Amino acid sequence: MSKLSSQPYKGTRDYYPEDKRIQNYIFDVWHKVSRSFGYEEYGAPTIEPLELYAAKSGQEIVNEQTYSFTDRGGRIVAIRPEMTPTISRMVAARRQELAYPARLYSIANFMRYERPQRGREREFWQLNVDIFDDDGINAESEIIMMSDQIMKEFNAKSDDYVIKINNRKLINFVMAQYLELDSAEALAMIRLFDRKNKISNEEFMDQATEIFGDKSESKLTKINLLLQAKNMAELPVEVRESSSIREIQRLFTILEHANIKSLVFDITLMRGFDYYTGMVFEVFDTNPENNRALFGGGRYDGLVGLFGVEPISAVGFAPGCTMLENFLEVHKLLPKSRSTTDIYVAILGDVTHEANKLTNDLRGAGINVELGSFGLKLDKQIKNVLKKNIPYILFIGEEEIKTGVYTLKDIAKSIEHKLDFAGITKLIKE
Amino acid sequence: MSKLSSQPYKGTRDYYPEDKRIQNYIFDVWHKVSRSFGYEEYGAPTIEPLELYAAKSGQEIVNEQTYSFTDRGGRIVAIRPEMTPTISRMVAARRQELAYPARLYSIANFMRYERPQRGREREFWQLNVDIFDDDGINAESEIIMMSDQIMKEFNAKSDDYVIKINNRKLINFVMAQYLELDSAEALAMIRLFDRKNKISNEEFMDQATEIFGDKSESKLTKINLLLQAKNMAELPVEVRESSSIREIQRLFTILEHANIKSLVFDITLMRGFDYYTGMVFEVFDTNPENNRALFGGGRYDGLVGLFGVEPISAVGFAPGCTMLENFLEVHKLLPKSRSTTDIYVAILGDVTHEANKLTNDLRGAGINVELGSFGLKLDKQIKNVLKKNIPYILFIGEEEIKTGVYTLKDIAKSIEHKLDFAGITKLIKE
Repeated sequence: MSKLSSQPYKGTRDYYPEDKRIQNYIFDVWHKVSRSFGYEEYGAPTIEPLELYAAKSGQEIVNEQTYSFTDRGGRIVAIRPEMTPTISRMVAARRQELAYPARLYSIANFMRYERPQRGREREFWQLNVDIFDDDGINAESEIIMMSDQIMKEFNAKSDDYVIKINNRKLINFVMAQYLELDSAEALAMIRLFDRKNKISNEEFMDQATEIFGDKSESKLTKINLLLQAKNMAELPVEVRESSSIREIQRLFTILEHANIKSLVFDITLMRGFDYYTGMVFEVFDTNPENNRALFGGGRYDGLVGLFGVEPISAVGFAPGCTMLENFLEVHKLLPKSRSTTDIYVAILGDVTHEANKLTNDLRGAGINVELGSFGLKLDKQIKNVLKKNIPYILFIGEEEIKTGVYTLKDIAKSIEHKLDFAGITKLIKE
Repeated sequence: MSKLSSQPYKGTRDYYPEDKRIQNYIFDVWHKVSRSFGYEEYGAPTIEPLELYAAKSGQEIVNEQTYSFTDRGGRIVAIRPEMTPTISRMVAARRQELAYPARLYSIANFMRYERPQRGREREFWQLNVDIFDDDGINAESEIIMMSDQIMKEFNAKSDDYVIKINNRKLINFVMAQYLELDSAEALAMIRLFDRKNKISNEEFMDQATEIFGDKSESKLTKINLLLQAKNMAELPVEVRESSSIREIQRLFTILEHANIKSLVFDITLMRGFDYYTGMVFEVFDTNPENNRALFGGGRYDGLVGLFGVEPISAVGFAPGCTMLENFLEVHKLLPKSRSTTDIYVAILGDVTHEANKLTNDLRGAGINVELGSFGLKLDKQIKNVLKKNIPYILFIGEEEIKTGVYTLKDIAKSIEHKLDFAGITKLIKE
């Protein structure tokens, strides 16, 4: 038999302990912030019927990016490429039983068949936070406060990132009323807005001219007025006085009162998914080395109703783990890594039963202890402790058992302590 | 468009908050015990090349139970049906870099296409614990101590379960030397042993006769001698004096010294996977309502070498979440469930900014707070708090803002406290 490859499937990652610790650090912040805002955790299946995504996730995801297949019973399924359709399904299934507004979160993995590159993997982990059945602007403000709080928990400074805000209703107003586009033209224009930061100004104007056709001149003037506005006050008057702008202004007022800095209004912000119906936002890294969207979300009021129940409004957001890991790396915010193990016990001599007893007593006191193997050379054991990044090593032999006093070595400080059991637990717990 | 189904894919589960809390309770115990024994967490891809399982997982799993498919790039992959081949691959990939013995664990989900029934789901969650490159009996004893400790952490009493122990080398000795079977006969006999508890004694003997062919009589006597032994001392002398039995006895001695009760030797214990090479064990529920294997593991020394590197020995085990949940249910060991949210804040009047401030200050003090929606009827809000199982409700209106004194209601005790900010945080933290 030929040998098997030891590499992971393309675009996926093996998380060795040092990688998993970073992921756990990010997960811990997500859990903490989500719970502190009163959100409760849920879990969901890895696969779903493909039709769940066909409804609203957008053509590109369904036709080009899903891991879809037919199961042994003939059902057409997909590994979930995102969580929003699943949680909408779950809420629909318990439409009558749940308490509203329902605040729900999950930390889960997803798969999309994409070309792997920095910050984008075929399998990725995401936090998903959603509030169901809250139509008020406070739902939007809460979701943005949570996004900001996540950045603060990671010790990001307020100028490390900006929070861009827009509203799909405003976009619809701009396309239909302000620019007077029909729905096909509007769709093309929305796609062009979405690409604005990736193309040159000239290219943008060329493509806009193409969309506008023979009415180009006046519409190009209008679009220039729109895009030159640095804030809401500078917008053309008919846009500035639309009801969507007033909604955005109310949102800004609440968030500014809650001491959220880094807010900017960005009329070109679109967000990819087809299902957004109101406010959309994006947290954007300001560092030139990582100048990109970190995560985002928005209001999507139409999904729950697809399951044949009375519709429920929803606002949510979903940060990805790898994207945040890159952010923390670039901004030098990753915490120092150490093993979850506190003590490595090195056995000197044939004292198996006694070493087992001491080790289990330490574990009973809440200390994480790895018991070394009898017979392994001591210098090899010490090398392993360094490799694993365990902070303490404890020696046990016949002498130690007789006296009840052990040598505990603090590896970073290179200090040896002579301690009894109580002394060891006291030192480690500090 | 016809409406979508709100049901999860067959054999998978939606974990609503109350279900997820039970799962998290089990996960927390797993994390605690694994870390306390010095094991470090890793993570791994959800899909792997199918050939990874073809090597050793066993024919039934690969041919009938994998969720396998061809990806958009023509690779034949499977959603992982188990973790052992993956962690063996990961160890092989870092054969030179890792510190040995390597102690590794993960908590992950798996899929198998099986008929769903009690305790068996198509998608299931498992703890996987493995120690690599420890050839000594202490690796076996540690793995069994951890299994026992998991049961103890769940508050199981020592007569709620038994730990059955056997050894594949002993089985090989029994088949080849004691019963003098050729390899085809031995395989049939091993399969028969594996089914022993599911069939009648008569059926067992009939099928054994068939396997033995014309030498039945003396072999049936031998097999009866073997199966009648209630412990190792009662085994036929040639079996009792084999080196494998001495190894099992050494293991029992270590475990009895470590105060592990519930140990039994069971020569019919096989474990399904083809890759086991030495000790195998199983934790078995003694309750008549749930009389079944909860989880198990063993030594598998051959897997890492399949990846073209020098082989490394391994011992591991893998408890499943649903199986343990059933155990906890049957033995009435599930803890009382409450929300992760500590306080629900009910807004009385138009005090959005002040309510946001108070709530965020409470969050800053480490308290999990859900902020109610302005405008929702108070009796509806209270009903929601009861549904969500949140222990406290706090009222904030203009009067409270003026005085800085709030009403905090303890729902279970139906007591109202009048407290300032410091008083609230103090009461909740107790």
